[in-house]
Amino acid sequence: MGNSIGHLFRVHTFGESHGPAVGGVVEGLPPGITLDLARVQAALDRRIPASALGSGRKETDRLEILSGLQDNTTLGTPLAFLVRNQDAKPADYAALANVWRPSHGDFSTEAKYGLRARSGGGRASARETVARVAAGAIAEQILPFAEIVGWVSEIENVVSSCDPTTITRENVDQQLTRCPDPAIDAQMRAVIDEAKEAGDTVGGVVRCVVRGLPAGLGDPVFDKLEATLGHALLSLPAVKGFEIGSGFRGTRLRGSEHNDAFEMSGDAVRTRTNHSGGVQAGISNGMPLEMAVAFKPVASIRQPQQTIDSEGEPITLEVRGRHDACVLPRAVPIVEAMVAIVLADHFLRWRGQCGEAPTR
Amino acid sequence: MGNSIGHLFRVHTFGESHGPAVGGVVEGLPPGITLDLARVQAALDRRIPASALGSGRKETDRLEILSGLQDNTTLGTPLAFLVRNQDAKPADYAALANVWRPSHGDFSTEAKYGLRARSGGGRASARETVARVAAGAIAEQILPFAEIVGWVSEIENVVSSCDPTTITRENVDQQLTRCPDPAIDAQMRAVIDEAKEAGDTVGGVVRCVVRGLPAGLGDPVFDKLEATLGHALLSLPAVKGFEIGSGFRGTRLRGSEHNDAFEMSGDAVRTRTNHSGGVQAGISNGMPLEMAVAFKPVASIRQPQQTIDSEGEPITLEVRGRHDACVLPRAVPIVEAMVAIVLADHFLRWRGQCGEAPTR
Amino acid sequence: MGNSIGHLFRVHTFGESHGPAVGGVVEGLPPGITLDLARVQAALDRRIPASALGSGRKETDRLEILSGLQDNTTLGTPLAFLVRNQDAKPADYAALANVWRPSHGDFSTEAKYGLRARSGGGRASARETVARVAAGAIAEQILPFAEIVGWVSEIENVVSSCDPTTITRENVDQQLTRCPDPAIDAQMRAVIDEAKEAGDTVGGVVRCVVRGLPAGLGDPVFDKLEATLGHALLSLPAVKGFEIGSGFRGTRLRGSEHNDAFEMSGDAVRTRTNHSGGVQAGISNGMPLEMAVAFKPVASIRQPQQTIDSEGEPITLEVRGRHDACVLPRAVPIVEAMVAIVLADHFLRWRGQCGEAPTR
Amino acid sequence: MGNSIGHLFRVHTFGESHGPAVGGVVEGLPPGITLDLARVQAALDRRIPASALGSGRKETDRLEILSGLQDNTTLGTPLAFLVRNQDAKPADYAALANVWRPSHGDFSTEAKYGLRARSGGGRASARETVARVAAGAIAEQILPFAEIVGWVSEIENVVSSCDPTTITRENVDQQLTRCPDPAIDAQMRAVIDEAKEAGDTVGGVVRCVVRGLPAGLGDPVFDKLEATLGHALLSLPAVKGFEIGSGFRGTRLRGSEHNDAFEMSGDAVRTRTNHSGGVQAGISNGMPLEMAVAFKPVASIRQPQQTIDSEGEPITLEVRGRHDACVLPRAVPIVEAMVAIVLADHFLRWRGQCGEAPTR
Repeated sequence: MGNSIGHLFRVHTFGESHGPAVGGVVEGLPPGITLDLARVQAALDRRIPASALGSGRKETDRLEILSGLQDNTTLGTPLAFLVRNQDAKPADYAALANVWRPSHGDFSTEAKYGLRARSGGGRASARETVARVAAGAIAEQILPFAEIVGWVSEIENVVSSCDPTTITRENVDQQLTRCPDPAIDAQMRAVIDEAKEAGDTVGGVVRCVVRGLPAGLGDPVFDKLEATLGHALLSLPAVKGFEIGSGFRGTRLRGSEHNDAFEMSGDAVRTRTNHSGGVQAGISNGMPLEMAVAFKPVASIRQPQQTIDSEGEPITLEVRGRHDACVLPRAVPIVEAMVAIVLADHFLRWRGQCGEAPTR
Repeated sequence: MGNSIGHLFRVHTFGESHGPAVGGVVEGLPPGITLDLARVQAALDRRIPASALGSGRKETDRLEILSGLQDNTTLGTPLAFLVRNQDAKPADYAALANVWRPSHGDFSTEAKYGLRARSGGGRASARETVARVAAGAIAEQILPFAEIVGWVSEIENVVSSCDPTTITRENVDQQLTRCPDPAIDAQMRAVIDEAKEAGDTVGGVVRCVVRGLPAGLGDPVFDKLEATLGHALLSLPAVKGFEIGSGFRGTRLRGSEHNDAFEMSGDAVRTRTNHSGGVQAGISNGMPLEMAVAFKPVASIRQPQQTIDSEGEPITLEVRGRHDACVLPRAVPIVEAMVAIVLADHFLRWRGQCGEAPTR
Repeated sequence: MGNSIGHLFRVHTFGESHGPAVGGVVEGLPPGITLDLARVQAALDRRIPASALGSGRKETDRLEILSGLQDNTTLGTPLAFLVRNQDAKPADYAALANVWRPSHGDFSTEAKYGLRARSGGGRASARETVARVAAGAIAEQILPFAEIVGWVSEIENVVSSCDPTTITRENVDQQLTRCPDPAIDAQMRAVIDEAKEAGDTVGGVVRCVVRGLPAGLGDPVFDKLEATLGHALLSLPAVKGFEIGSGFRGTRLRGSEHNDAFEMSGDAVRTRTNHSGGVQAGISNGMPLEMAVAFKPVASIRQPQQTIDSEGEPITLEVRGRHDACVLPRAVPIVEAMVAIVLADHFLRWRGQCGEAPTR
Repeated sequence: MGNSIGHLFRVHTFGESHGPAVGGVVEGLPPGITLDLARVQAALDRRIPASALGSGRKETDRLEILSGLQDNTTLGTPLAFLVRNQDAKPADYAALANVWRPSHGDFSTEAKYGLRARSGGGRASARETVARVAAGAIAEQILPFAEIVGWVSEIENVVSSCDPTTITRENVDQQLTRCPDPAIDAQMRAVIDEAKEAGDTVGGVVRCVVRGLPAGLGDPVFDKLEATLGHALLSLPAVKGFEIGSGFRGTRLRGSEHNDAFEMSGDAVRTRTNHSGGVQAGISNGMPLEMAVAFKPVASIRQPQQTIDSEGEPITLEVRGRHDACVLPRAVPIVEAMVAIVLADHFLRWRGQCGEAPTR
């Protein structure tokens, strides 16, 4: 069951990184919606790493849709899709078949299943996120009222400061790092280049904002909006932390500082501050959703490392294959996709239980 | 559906904070396990605030079990339980019926449901966690191999440093704040007292470790161990952030520093460091699980606040009722409970998919 | 997980027949609906056997609601309820603790769980249906457009013929057997009395019709309306068969006879015949839903029976306890309840995926 | 959500009858099992109609596996597969785009979704069962102890009598109708030929037995073994009834006749009769599972029929396309597949809740 997410709007993914294909099934799509498939393909293209920063793996990632559409209009039936794995190089991994790479899932996967895909990361590979991105780009299209924007906020010690109330995807995509501040982008690139040179990798923080979301989405107990968003984002490879609103920093504020006072803005209810990050008691309050996601430096480094093989014998590992020195820029559309999937589900759940469209 | 968590080991909760009772149903309990109900009651007692720190709400919280047991042994059927709400004081809330308290769920709940419980926080109240704690204390008993220990790590700016490999519940419970370092406990108490005096509230960080967990629990995609743990912990009232292992701090490390090298320790596989926090590719690796949870300062403060009522009219709010200046100490058993619930589910899921064949 | 039914409108039940209580939790209730609780209690009262036909077990079955309501209005939160078991007589069962009663679940339950409730049927007892009836009487109230009527159609070889397009609960309740035809009722009573006299039991068929259901509820694949209705009704104790529309009898017709031709009736689409039983391709077509449910004769008979004990030793069993000679009359409200629960779920699922209320 | 079945062993299907492909995803497969894919292909081949009886639609139905296997061994990850629709003839359906065919899902599908696949039956088409058959043939391979055999028991008024304790697939496949009694097979063929000649269709009954199933599978409440089997089988196109054990016929027996007395047979517990059909209180008792499934005559007949179009105008319908005069023979492997899927799920659920502790 761990290959599905959502309750009414439900996404299933399948595929190993070096198998024939990765793909997914999107269930619960409202019928009669004409999808812009070019937007879905564009989302996949955004996920492919820029040559200057990426792994060098060349995937064209052409989406093939198998079901659920008629003249690009949803039938209300499962939309299945796949993307062929065209550039898998299992040979790069032959030497690793019996090695437990540090901070990879080789050992833990074998501990669970007794075996693992001989090459690549199997299901835990970032390759699986192709399916998430396609599904997310579909989910977005049933949420026309919501604008979801992610960006690279930090790379290692380089920290940007962007205004979540105005940032756009256009801003973000203007910089190679997907940090929209040109000066910070330059610094980030320098850090990435330096790490790459050293055969090393760097991590960072992706932030994401959702504007235009009506109040009333989310559940008050286990499926709080932040809990389901956290679930979705912590399920991404390399993620080690998640924050909503003020996050860890908010623990340093007093209640009198942290509380978001309600006020009217014309006819609309809003809050003067947004430490809550757009969610109160698990339910959206109409203010922008604000999240942060921590990505560790990826585990595949070119420097030699000490580890053991599956016999327990110490060995020196030298990873070849193609790997990113920094995954943050390509993580941006993946983060956006997961957010869209979660919101689409809450939207349908809300409509099922509470009926009629949200009126804000 | 937002009132349930887990897939095979499944916990449902019910009850409004000022309704007749709160309670839950624990489904999926393996049959034939003799439960120590005194441990469950003790967990509920740990959740009741110490008088020096707590809200003054006096709940004896006596657990009543309605089903699922015979001579305290599980029948494999749903274990339903309830705890009566004996000390609800709806009158304290009469003046608040039409007021949207800052950073509470009053507004967002009405936006979703069109109405809300007139008094207390309804389902989003911390009162609901009574059911989680009882369920968690039951979950622990099907995980005899796992030792789950939570503690208060930070209160506002006071930060402790405890060794997750040795900390015990006995250590933790020796201090009123549940920070086991006596010197730090004293500083934390000073901060809490000062905030209380000022009619204000403080937040902080709870950390939790799980020792003794076997390798192999968790799923590689959407239900990664950290994703389901994050889901569970972000579903607690007042939580704004979650970290596994190195968390946000880990984004400042290079891959060469962050990677956890495998080595043998006698017959056992272990890693030299544990930046992964016991999870790799979503699956436990046999090292201690390490998590951190950020709690914002609670929203109910005694200081007057500006807000609006449900007509949009500005008003000055003065909260009475009984509220904690700091929830962190009583959050500790709640965090432990959620962790236990998640692990019990993964344990049964593992056994279902990967376990042995029936022999009868 | 086997203690829940439904996806959006979700009913959980708990309780052993001779434990402290039976009860349930109804999740997914739309908010803001004022429930008529007298109707729920009345449904429970209909389930209590008439003295002339029943088991002699005296349960007043008073419903206690624990959550989810404010001034009888749904909050959109889980509605938990319980009914105490006041008349359990475990002593009647003491002699049976090690006996596998024929056609009861004693053996199969032990085979699964390794143990079983020492007295009564545990979860598989008809006592559990108290919770279903309460939940169903709530479900009905979110389906004001649908009229659900069940009746006893056959007892052993006595077969009635009632018009599903006009039958009402008032008709049904006028006869002790809940077969609304007075002449057939008399024959059925004679059969039941004769069986009772002989220390034996009889089975029969309950039919159920739903009028007023809009077209468009149900799913085309695994959750066809008839599949989920069949699931719900086959989950009742003693049920061995289920039919929708023409059922088994329909297999004797040619396609040219069985096909239901569409025609207009004023502005409404209808079919000239209704062999489909109101469902086509898994989705309601606006015609009355028509179902039949086969109940075997109950297993508890007063006649001595040969069986074995849990050591495999042959013994002669003489059941005491209180048991019905015929459960059919009290099965009627239980069948209606299960139908209501299934329809409520499909209604919310429809609204979630397809939006707005069905307009037919 | 209506496109999935099962809880731990979970099958998702996708694909419209005249879209690019039909396929599915099998989740929850135990890892390390070497699958015999030839058996899966053989199951698909059994589903293709024999020329003498079938629809004339020529599908080679070649299975393509996209994920989940390495050297034919399960990785414990989702096994996705597809079968291309090679012989779809949408042109046959052009004239039907605005017609509501009698007893098809055209009208009800539009009532739900507002639109439908212009050609073929969309998701409700028997074409979707390709995915079920493939998934079922995989499910069987994790149940090596169980022997599942289905056969055609009745065609219209021709009724066979076969011994469920000895019947085999080899017997069944020796006759074109899949009724293993040669004399009855001849009569059935005569009936089918006669109906075909008349441009008409016939229905019938498929029976299925499972031998070798251990006692202890199933749940005592909503997910009784018979309830989940009934759900699965009633979700097949054209099914109008389901029986377990004595079914409707059993309602004519007295309790004293119907009860299955336990006895020892060597070391094994068995019952003298098997009116229960292998299930008591929802849980298997180790005796053969015995089921019957009623298939109505298929709705596509060559005879002209009166119906209306989507404007409500009366029209005379003359169906072309390729359709079976009798689907029963090809329903046999489909019934077996659904039974295997349900049993695989109960097997994993049993192991999850009741199985052994992890030893690593």
